[in-house]
Order: sequence, then structure tokens, then C-alpha cells
Amino acid sequence: MINKLVEKIKKLNAPVVVGLDPMLNYVPEHVQKKAFDEFGETLEGAGEAIWQFNKAIIDATCDLIPAVKPQIAMYEQFGIEGLKAFKKTVDYAKSKDIVVIGDIKRGDIGSTSSAYAVGHVGKVQVGSKTYVPFDEDFVTVNPYLGTDGVKPFIDVCKEESKGIFVLVKTSNKSSGEFQDRLVDGRPLYEIVGEYVAKWGEEHMGDSYSYVGAVVGATYPEMGKVLRKIMPKTYILVPGYGAQGGKASDLKPYFNDDGLGAIVNSSRGIIAAYRQEKYAKFGAENFAEASRQAVIDMVEDITSNI
Amino acid sequence: MINKLVEKIKKLNAPVVVGLDPMLNYVPEHVQKKAFDEFGETLEGAGEAIWQFNKAIIDATCDLIPAVKPQIAMYEQFGIEGLKAFKKTVDYAKSKDIVVIGDIKRGDIGSTSSAYAVGHVGKVQVGSKTYVPFDEDFVTVNPYLGTDGVKPFIDVCKEESKGIFVLVKTSNKSSGEFQDRLVDGRPLYEIVGEYVAKWGEEHMGDSYSYVGAVVGATYPEMGKVLRKIMPKTYILVPGYGAQGGKASDLKPYFNDDGLGAIVNSSRGIIAAYRQEKYAKFGAENFAEASRQAVIDMVEDITSNI
Repeated sequence: MINKLVEKIKKLNAPVVVGLDPMLNYVPEHVQKKAFDEFGETLEGAGEAIWQFNKAIIDATCDLIPAVKPQIAMYEQFGIEGLKAFKKTVDYAKSKDIVVIGDIKRGDIGSTSSAYAVGHVGKVQVGSKTYVPFDEDFVTVNPYLGTDGVKPFIDVCKEESKGIFVLVKTSNKSSGEFQDRLVDGRPLYEIVGEYVAKWGEEHMGDSYSYVGAVVGATYPEMGKVLRKIMPKTYILVPGYGAQGGKASDLKPYFNDDGLGAIVNSSRGIIAAYRQEKYAKFGAENFAEASRQAVIDMVEDITSNI
Repeated sequence: MINKLVEKIKKLNAPVVVGLDPMLNYVPEHVQKKAFDEFGETLEGAGEAIWQFNKAIIDATCDLIPAVKPQIAMYEQFGIEGLKAFKKTVDYAKSKDIVVIGDIKRGDIGSTSSAYAVGHVGKVQVGSKTYVPFDEDFVTVNPYLGTDGVKPFIDVCKEESKGIFVLVKTSNKSSGEFQDRLVDGRPLYEIVGEYVAKWGEEHMGDSYSYVGAVVGATYPEMGKVLRKIMPKTYILVPGYGAQGGKASDLKPYFNDDGLGAIVNSSRGIIAAYRQEKYAKFGAENFAEASRQAVIDMVEDITSNI
């Protein structure tokens, strides 16, 4: 799957991923109304609203983007009905040949991590049958529990030709509280980065590993160091746009081949219609506003790397 | 909710929690068969099997135990149908007045962490209505992202009188790779423990905070240090029994009042019928075997603290 992701990024010349993190208040009134008219102001109605919202954005952008990254928390908050919308979104994006990165940030140990891996990027056995529960192409994984927590994901990914992105340095303000702590004079995120590189070495696609890393756009100096520590690691970069990361800061995340990083934007794309810059589209044409925001983002990033 | 948990532990003289982590192969053949006869060898059938298994164990132990800890990964691996079984298990345990600790190990930032919090220990808004999606009493939280990731959970818990247990030192072998790294001569888990104590100070129940910690039974020396760093923190202790932690090692996790810790056992209780010690019950009476295993565990622990 890492080969497919790299190929699509090259072909589209678009090292970007659209974060499908639909807060209900991002969903235009007319989409909410239609869903609530049909299902009431219920969890089912909320699921329907975010699913229709996602579908329209996928339809309007699928020829431009290599990948989407649905953030499962935004669906899980609506319980079972929200998770049904997550599943529909994953399946629909895949039907449009878009790579799906499930932003699930799971992490546990042994058989428990295996269960998450099976549920999201693998197959589960029920008696004599096997099923594919959520079926993302990649998922994000939290490394706090060490190799025991990450290895079960890698094992399933190896079998299924899928992949993971391990949190190394996150984009938020307080990420430094633990991630930046100095261990023998070096920040912890560098140590985590070394583990990611080591895990990845044995799990390579053609040119990059299917064990990737998450490194926030808001810390370019750290991105530079981590790029060197993890030369064969694809870096998923959150924090561009709404969170403050600028395209001019992103060069260090890429290798000289122009590859090695994929930049996420969520709010900046999916709620583009609410920005002054795209207000002319109007809420009715929110998906077209998202399309234009993707075009602008790709231009912004590719002209800076 | 921390007050209720402490009261129940005192009343039952049982500082234990039963981990409802049903691997499908823990579920006795006759329970699986009944579920598959009704729903086929499907995800729905798997969900039904683990739900019926849980229900029988809850019925057989509910007068002895203050809390259960369903591990969501074991349900999530069966997709939507598995998560329905999770929800049913949570609701049923609560109907029996058992405190439910959702072992979800979630952790993200800002509005995303809020979404998880709302989904698991809070209420979600849909138009003019509010809903309670999963409705656990406590959840476990991963601290790798720092205060930004934990605070949204605490805020929701404050509003809803619920609580969290933050991963500090986990019970697995490779937990030391990052958690034990020395920062200014002290292991990272101590720093995390200090944050937990600090977060907890401002969020107190009557005698303990509703910001708890997870510290594995497999590292008693570390438990001793962490107990001192976090005197008002309830410690959830995994790793007893099947993972190798012994009751004689558990004393350091408790305060002099005999409180302050709650010890989890999963496999050792729910799959007791498969142990030689409880084989006499037979698979047909698996829930009675679990009941006896709870009685033995409570005796083992209370005689050692």
C-alpha cells in the first residue's frame, strides 16, 4: 500500500491528504436539515449528515488527491451510528481508488493491539469464516507502550500489504511535555524516531517503508532532524493551515526526491466554504469550495518543496 | 464516580476489577454454537457470542465486584457488530450497579480528544437534542500528547462526575523502551506520574481524585515510587495473574488506608474454566468458575495488603 500511496502522490503531483474530521458544525445547514428531516435529530441523523458531507467532498476532490484521513474520534462521538458513517466513508473513498489513512491513534499490547490491527487493517476470524471489519489502508498508532504495542500492527500490515504511521512528534502545543524530554541529551521524539526507522527497515515497500511516522508541521526544526533519522520513512504531517504550519516550513520534511512526506489539512479543506477566501462558493457549493482549497493547497506546497 | 468506586471497594472489601476482554476462543463452544445457530458465523454472531458470555459472567459475579473493565479492542475487532456488544455490556454492567471502566486508551488533541471524551464519558449534541453514546464511568487515556490530550477528558469528566485512568507505566515487557528513559536522572514514567498528580489535585472526589493512573503489577518497585508521587491518585493495576504479577507484589500500590489501588484480572477470571484449578466446573458452568476465581482473587489480594 505504501507503493500505491507513493505512486499516486507522484502521478497527481500532490503530497497531500484531506482530513475528513467532520465536526457537525462544519456540515452546511442544508445537509444537516436533509439528514434530520429523514432521521430526526438523532445519532443516526448525525451519522447521515457527516456521511453525506464526506461523500460530496470525496466526489469533488477524488481526481486531485491521493489520500483521505478520516479522524475516527469525530465519528465515534456519535456512537455506533457515527462509526457506521466512518465505515461508509472508508468504503466509499476506497471505491474511488483513494488511499485511506484511518486516524485512530490506537495502541495497546500484545493480543489487544492485534485485535485493533485486525479490526482496522486486517481480517477477523469468526468460526470458519473471515471478515474485514473497518478496512482502512493505513492507521495511525501511538508508541507509548513500545514495540509490544506496535509490532502486532506491523505483523498484520505485512500480511495484508497495508501500513501504519507511528506518532513521533505531534503538532499540538503541549506535545513537548513528554515528547521533548531530553534522554542522554536528546529529545524523546528522536528516540521514538529511531525505533520507527528500525521497525521500518525490515518492512520496506519499493523505496519507502510501510512503517511511517507522524511529525507535526508546527515544528520544522524537529522535522529536519527526524527526516535524517528516518530517511526511508514516509512522514504524515498534520498541522498545516488551520493549526499554523506554513508551506515554507515544510521543505525539511521531504527528501531530495521530492517524496517522503504527505501533508494533511482537515478544517482548511472540508470547511473551506466558511473561509472568506472561498465564501463566494456559498454553503450550497461547499464541496466545490473544498476542491478549490485542495488546488490551492497543492500549489502552495509543491511550489515550496 | 470515584467516590462510588471507592465506596463499592470498601463495602465489598474487594479492590478488584474484572477485565471483560473476550477473545472469541475464551467463549465456550456451547455459547458460540448458540450464537452462530441464530446469526450464522458472522460478525453479528461473534458479537452475540461475546455479549452472552459477558452477561453470564456479570450475572455470576455482580454481587462480589465493584467494577468491570471491558477492553474495547476485543469488540472493535468485530467492527460495528462488536461495538454493539461493547455497548450492551457497558449498559448491562451499569444496570447491575457495577462501575464500568472502558479500557479504550484513547488520546488525541483538542477538539479530537473532546470528541472521544464526549463519545465515551459524556453527551453529544445533535441539533437541539443530546445523546449519551457509549456511557462508560471511567476510561483509560494515553498521555503521549501531553496536557492537550488529557485535559478535554478531564473537562468532560468534571461535568459528568466521571473519571479517567492515565497510562503511566504499563505492564508489558517493552514498556521500558520509552517509559523508563531517564530524564534528568529520573524515568519518564515518574514525570508522567507527576503530571497525573498535578491534574488530579484540582479534580478531587472526597478522598481520591477522579484523575487516576495505570501502573502495571509487573513492576512493584516502580509502583512504590509512583504511589508516593501520586498519593491521592487511584491506581488501576493490570498485569496480575496471567501476566505474571503476584499478590505479594501489590502492597506498594496501596496506601496505608488499604485503598488507592484496584487490581485487574481478565483472562484469569473470564477464562477461569479453562484452568486446571477450575476444570471441575466444566465449560457448561464457566460463569460459576469465574465466580470462584473472583472469590480466590479477592482473598489472595486482601490477605496480602
